[in-house]
Amino acid sequence: MEKTKVAIVGLGTVGTGVAKLLLDHGDRTARHAGRTLWLQRAVVRDASKPEYADLPEGVVTEDLDDVLNDPEIKVVAQLIGGLEPARTIMLKLLESGKDVVTANKALLAEHGPELFGRARELGQCIAFEAAVAGGIPIITNISQCLSANQILSLEGILNGTSNFLVTQMDRLGMSFDDAVAQAQELGYAEADPTMDVDGTDAAQKLAILAHLAFGAHPRWADIPRLGVDQLDPADLQYARELGYRIKLLAVARLGSEGLELHVSPTLVKAGTPLAEVQDAFNAIAVRGDAVGPVFYHGLGAGQMPTASAVVADIIDTAVGRTRLTFQTLKQFNGDEQPRVSLRPFSELPGRYYLRLHVNDSPGVLGEITGVLGRHQVSIASVIQHEPANDGTSDVVPLVIMTHSAPEGAAGRAANEIENLDCVVGKVIRLRVKVGE
Amino acid sequence: MEKTKVAIVGLGTVGTGVAKLLLDHGDRTARHAGRTLWLQRAVVRDASKPEYADLPEGVVTEDLDDVLNDPEIKVVAQLIGGLEPARTIMLKLLESGKDVVTANKALLAEHGPELFGRARELGQCIAFEAAVAGGIPIITNISQCLSANQILSLEGILNGTSNFLVTQMDRLGMSFDDAVAQAQELGYAEADPTMDVDGTDAAQKLAILAHLAFGAHPRWADIPRLGVDQLDPADLQYARELGYRIKLLAVARLGSEGLELHVSPTLVKAGTPLAEVQDAFNAIAVRGDAVGPVFYHGLGAGQMPTASAVVADIIDTAVGRTRLTFQTLKQFNGDEQPRVSLRPFSELPGRYYLRLHVNDSPGVLGEITGVLGRHQVSIASVIQHEPANDGTSDVVPLVIMTHSAPEGAAGRAANEIENLDCVVGKVIRLRVKVGE
Repeated sequence: MEKTKVAIVGLGTVGTGVAKLLLDHGDRTARHAGRTLWLQRAVVRDASKPEYADLPEGVVTEDLDDVLNDPEIKVVAQLIGGLEPARTIMLKLLESGKDVVTANKALLAEHGPELFGRARELGQCIAFEAAVAGGIPIITNISQCLSANQILSLEGILNGTSNFLVTQMDRLGMSFDDAVAQAQELGYAEADPTMDVDGTDAAQKLAILAHLAFGAHPRWADIPRLGVDQLDPADLQYARELGYRIKLLAVARLGSEGLELHVSPTLVKAGTPLAEVQDAFNAIAVRGDAVGPVFYHGLGAGQMPTASAVVADIIDTAVGRTRLTFQTLKQFNGDEQPRVSLRPFSELPGRYYLRLHVNDSPGVLGEITGVLGRHQVSIASVIQHEPANDGTSDVVPLVIMTHSAPEGAAGRAANEIENLDCVVGKVIRLRVKVGE
Repeated sequence: MEKTKVAIVGLGTVGTGVAKLLLDHGDRTARHAGRTLWLQRAVVRDASKPEYADLPEGVVTEDLDDVLNDPEIKVVAQLIGGLEPARTIMLKLLESGKDVVTANKALLAEHGPELFGRARELGQCIAFEAAVAGGIPIITNISQCLSANQILSLEGILNGTSNFLVTQMDRLGMSFDDAVAQAQELGYAEADPTMDVDGTDAAQKLAILAHLAFGAHPRWADIPRLGVDQLDPADLQYARELGYRIKLLAVARLGSEGLELHVSPTLVKAGTPLAEVQDAFNAIAVRGDAVGPVFYHGLGAGQMPTASAVVADIIDTAVGRTRLTFQTLKQFNGDEQPRVSLRPFSELPGRYYLRLHVNDSPGVLGEITGVLGRHQVSIASVIQHEPANDGTSDVVPLVIMTHSAPEGAAGRAANEIENLDCVVGKVIRLRVKVGE
């Protein structure tokens, strides 16, 4: 049987999982690849670590040149996170004639056009299934399986850490900080979870999906985004009372006026599929003009789900499918004009959840509805509970759900309300998912 | 831009949808295929039908030879149902040098090894995404996206007609016959819905999936199967009372003793994803040893969802991906030994729902539990309502949920119970889904 030599750069959690699949299940990968996939090298920073002792003699090396200078190594899984040295290593791999598989979404979101352009010049290819949604093969599904469709919308829970935190806050009434501490203990959150919880990670993934599904060329940093780090358990509780759950939704939706793109904690109707995504799971609801709605649900991160995607890419690359897709689709082509324009965030319609604290005095509700009315934001429902009857406070919480209004108008109305004398503290404003 | 000429054989519902996508969205298919996909011919039985008048001049023909003798036509979507002449036409297409795309699951389930063997001999390939689950791209997901995994289990709602009928019976308390009449009116059931409602269609699809996911070679006709045609609204009602829904589940599950395969109306815990699949939707829950659980939900039939899958296959075939997959995976290879053995149905463990009518007299429950006990079938819960207190009947319904027991033992116990003097009429026995 033909043999394709493979290397891994970076034996962290995912790299170790990839090595395990290649070494322990050679029969399985050979059956799907039509050839033996042979793990020739794994490049690490410190080859003396005890956990590498189980790997076959000669596989582990600290020298990238052992990969670059071995012309028999055709496919390399580049599994180093961050931008540098990941970018430089990827360029070196391409320049030495390797096809590259990567799980690094930040690298693609930041340097996609450069890396893909260089790969095309060199006649090499890049596979990146593991960069978005881990075990859910959304890249191949959009690029290949749903290729007969104009994708109309794509709404996803793309950050497992955020979803785990929100699920725990909702289930146990925990504060955000306590949920983070617990998630760190359980291995669901990094020591510094900033990029996960502030919406950066989801925005980078959304930028990649928006490019593949819509031909948009958004810079991830330009995607309007909020994270779950400002969520208060009180909002999860009110959402529940209103028949909703709060999820960190990444949304791309095509309309006649362009593409809507944003990442925000969003109230999603309870009982609908996205609302019921629990713990560290990811899910993506896609709507195509021919296929209609297709819903995907699976583990978005973790060692073996991500390794599953990386090894599928290694197989696709060894078989030659990746090369065909890469040549045909010309993903991340910097010379290509975007096929859609992005709608300005302020113009996007949306429904909103507003929570504020007001003095319990006559005329307050009228004042607030007056501001909303002036900004043409109409009210769908209100929750105002009676004040605590022990007389300790004359400040009461007020929750308002609006009908559809432009983001900009809703934001201006909320600001104006926050400045009213009868309003105490900040106005919390969250988006509400429209449609199923 | 390069041009690949395409033909369609059979302009029924799906064929018309495929023609529509090719003709109206040439820019889209060209972008994904890297070449223009040009609809050269559509072979029909009666070219004079008024609905063909909109197609471009010269496309519609009654003569298959117009396709067979045109060497420029490289890819043919063969969209005729049934076994003959579909089989003969497919062989002719392969022999004249065409790659073939088909949606005909019955043909593959019955003649897969012959057709795939011939295609391999001739150096041609066959694509069949649309044969299972319509718009859910489960074939590509199993064959390609999840290829790093040993699939452990696959549980699906694969027949949209059955699911529509069960949903309506459950929602409206309709009888099976009334639900069929309504489904026929709405276009969700064929004039003769036998193959859909008796489990044949789901068993054919399960045979294809079991082959791809597990390397099994089951004959579809050997797969134990029950349909929804015997379902009584009373069972849907009792299931609901017990916290379940009834769904026609197709199950393939790998264990140390072999592969479990069957199609049966099954009680599925309410609130779990498969239980909440409504109307004509399909869904498939896959579990892989690396990726964990992945859940797919979408439209399993209908013109445009199925056309979406056919056109994705046409694109994959034109790009060359299908050929690579076909050469590598050697699907439906009659010379290959199955990689798993099938477990005898009688040995399969399962939980069961039993419903029967008993005389309301002392000792009856004891007699029945005695029979179950002798067959080592233990009881998890019982519903026995009081008899109608108007004295009109002394026969009462009794519903029993069992713990896990082998199918054979449960069947023998149910038969023995049916023959007890205190039992009136038949014993209804349904499987209960184990696990999430």
